[in-house]
Amino acid sequence: MTIDPETTALDTPGCRNGQVFLDSAGSSLAPARVADTVVDHLRRETEIGGYRAAAEREEDLEAGYSVFAELLGCAPEEIAFTDSATRSWFAAFRSIPLKENDRILITEVEYGGNAVAMLRRAEAVGASVEVVPSDPSGEVSPTALRELLDERVRFVSLVHAPTNGGLLNPVREVVDAAHDAGALVLLDGCQSVGQISCRADETGADFIAGTGRKWLRGPRGTGFLYARRSILDDLILDEIDHHGGEWTAPDRTRARDDAKVFELWESSIADRLGLIEAARYALELGVPEIREAVRGISGRLREGLARIEGVRVHDLGVRHSGIVTFDVEGVPAPEVVAALARADVTVTVSREASTRIDMERRGLTEIVRASPHYFVTPQRVDRALELVEGIVRGARNGGA
Amino acid sequence: MTIDPETTALDTPGCRNGQVFLDSAGSSLAPARVADTVVDHLRRETEIGGYRAAAEREEDLEAGYSVFAELLGCAPEEIAFTDSATRSWFAAFRSIPLKENDRILITEVEYGGNAVAMLRRAEAVGASVEVVPSDPSGEVSPTALRELLDERVRFVSLVHAPTNGGLLNPVREVVDAAHDAGALVLLDGCQSVGQISCRADETGADFIAGTGRKWLRGPRGTGFLYARRSILDDLILDEIDHHGGEWTAPDRTRARDDAKVFELWESSIADRLGLIEAARYALELGVPEIREAVRGISGRLREGLARIEGVRVHDLGVRHSGIVTFDVEGVPAPEVVAALARADVTVTVSREASTRIDMERRGLTEIVRASPHYFVTPQRVDRALELVEGIVRGARNGGA
Repeated sequence: MTIDPETTALDTPGCRNGQVFLDSAGSSLAPARVADTVVDHLRRETEIGGYRAAAEREEDLEAGYSVFAELLGCAPEEIAFTDSATRSWFAAFRSIPLKENDRILITEVEYGGNAVAMLRRAEAVGASVEVVPSDPSGEVSPTALRELLDERVRFVSLVHAPTNGGLLNPVREVVDAAHDAGALVLLDGCQSVGQISCRADETGADFIAGTGRKWLRGPRGTGFLYARRSILDDLILDEIDHHGGEWTAPDRTRARDDAKVFELWESSIADRLGLIEAARYALELGVPEIREAVRGISGRLREGLARIEGVRVHDLGVRHSGIVTFDVEGVPAPEVVAALARADVTVTVSREASTRIDMERRGLTEIVRASPHYFVTPQRVDRALELVEGIVRGARNGGA
Repeated sequence: MTIDPETTALDTPGCRNGQVFLDSAGSSLAPARVADTVVDHLRRETEIGGYRAAAEREEDLEAGYSVFAELLGCAPEEIAFTDSATRSWFAAFRSIPLKENDRILITEVEYGGNAVAMLRRAEAVGASVEVVPSDPSGEVSPTALRELLDERVRFVSLVHAPTNGGLLNPVREVVDAAHDAGALVLLDGCQSVGQISCRADETGADFIAGTGRKWLRGPRGTGFLYARRSILDDLILDEIDHHGGEWTAPDRTRARDDAKVFELWESSIADRLGLIEAARYALELGVPEIREAVRGISGRLREGLARIEGVRVHDLGVRHSGIVTFDVEGVPAPEVVAALARADVTVTVSREASTRIDMERRGLTEIVRASPHYFVTPQRVDRALELVEGIVRGARNGGA
């Protein structure tokens, strides 16, 4: 079954007007049933209070762990819910023991949020953060990784799909190399889960962190974490409340032995239910089917842009995600974004600070990011392409 | 101006049916305008995407810092928003340097979530957690605190209003004593902000952590933190993303110099807007007026319960918050809660694990917690009292 963009657009309130929505890598448009799930629960909370409302949905909340286990290829006990991908990533990173002279390896496309936390913790404990070189295509090089690995490397941070381009990094090879050297791998699936398979059982990753609001089309303020249960005993599990652990005696505690150890007790139940509904929706469409549809529509955009003289496409790598990045000669990226916004085409600017190593290496400071999901029709992509052509023409005639 | 419960009940969808809602210490009923704020923004996100929707509300989001500065008696730059009170508390606690042989002082009513984190971190670094005795009324004793303080005490954790009873701890005296000894004070305002004044300028606390969903009547999944700006330089600010800090060069970072250093970039914008609206609503009613109304209605409940033979009220302290705890002779607390729920009276059970030190000391395992806010009318409280009398009678006749 292939996904029909017209059908999925009908499920999507944001597609009912003429908008060309190309920002699923930012914060996507939720299907109606996801938005309704959130709103219905919020209304219920105002009727009977947050605790009784949550109690009514206890089974659905528990079922959410199985839904994400299916999505990520793991056991329900290996899933935790949080309020963002960064929160998930931080919860995992914080748990990894790190001491003086230890080494952390990252890729050239490391995400700003992760990088700041790694650099600061490394400095505090006297560890180092080193960048694994990419191969000529732009993918992280497993060969270069193997050369860098030694017993001091505790941790490899791997971004599956960067925020600033269509690159997809190889995962299995990186994980295998890291494991051979005794290092743990935290896979950042923030830009991949929901558009491409990102599974524990296929990749072997020790952690996978992700968000609800992007390719999964869930609510903002939601995230999730896969954590391999067999490694929990080796982790630092300190920042936990009496949901993640137990206060067994006035001076004693015990941490949970499943991934809920990474959760706090309190969260938005409405947003959590929306996140679970979004994952169900994705599983019903089928992850391979979504991948195929996103590849098709983003390929159409990428190839169309590449054909426009005066436009440079900046996506690295051999295989591509749904993210398409480009710039227009002579027109700053924010102006391209603003011009498209005036015609109801939503794209964003990807800035140096989000992926500094890669952007500096390529001499880029700001590029336009367009990220069509499967609900965008070819006609709408073609309209965006025409508008970009118009911006190029306008620039040549002396104004964007 | 006194608050009229009939008027505020009209603003509250959850009061329109016959429900007697006595769980504002759990998760309160939002005013209609707070719920509408959240829902409207969620709908807007489904129309134009999360990023454009947030951009439309940028000024309102920024104004939120001033709203909370007014509520907490500090500068807007001393406010951070998070997804829960525990998150706020953890963000502050994590930032306080702690080394071997350092001492942490807590009160007898310390909250389970905080306690688990403190005990685990203390064990990891070789520090100790010690309990400051209460005075005969049940309040933490500033005299006992002064006797315990020395230069090894880095940190005093003070719960303003415990989750398991009507106690209100003295704050100014505790803060002054701690500061005289060079210790920082983290004030847990989770059960106080929104029902009673809890301000940085009046208490002198170094941090105040709080939640949206309880006495402020905001959405679940929201929290806030006041952090004194003058102490930021002395803190550990490691777990930050590129919102809390800057990635200034591939191997360099810089932390923000305001309280936003405790925030992550991503959050639910809808919930944040709802939280801000809830704080505005509270400020419009007036914090002293809310305090007076809550004192009145919870006093009516507490005194009414004390007059029922077979009911024991468990609230400690001299001054009382809006939390009323009790049990019914011969009837387990969950059965009391269930019996009241069948008559549409919402109360909860407060269990040992939430406040273990205090509960063990008093030989309690489960008690009933009722927490009326200003929107509960005297008639509804009286109805609850009649129902409790009925439960007592039923128990005496051989069944709850």
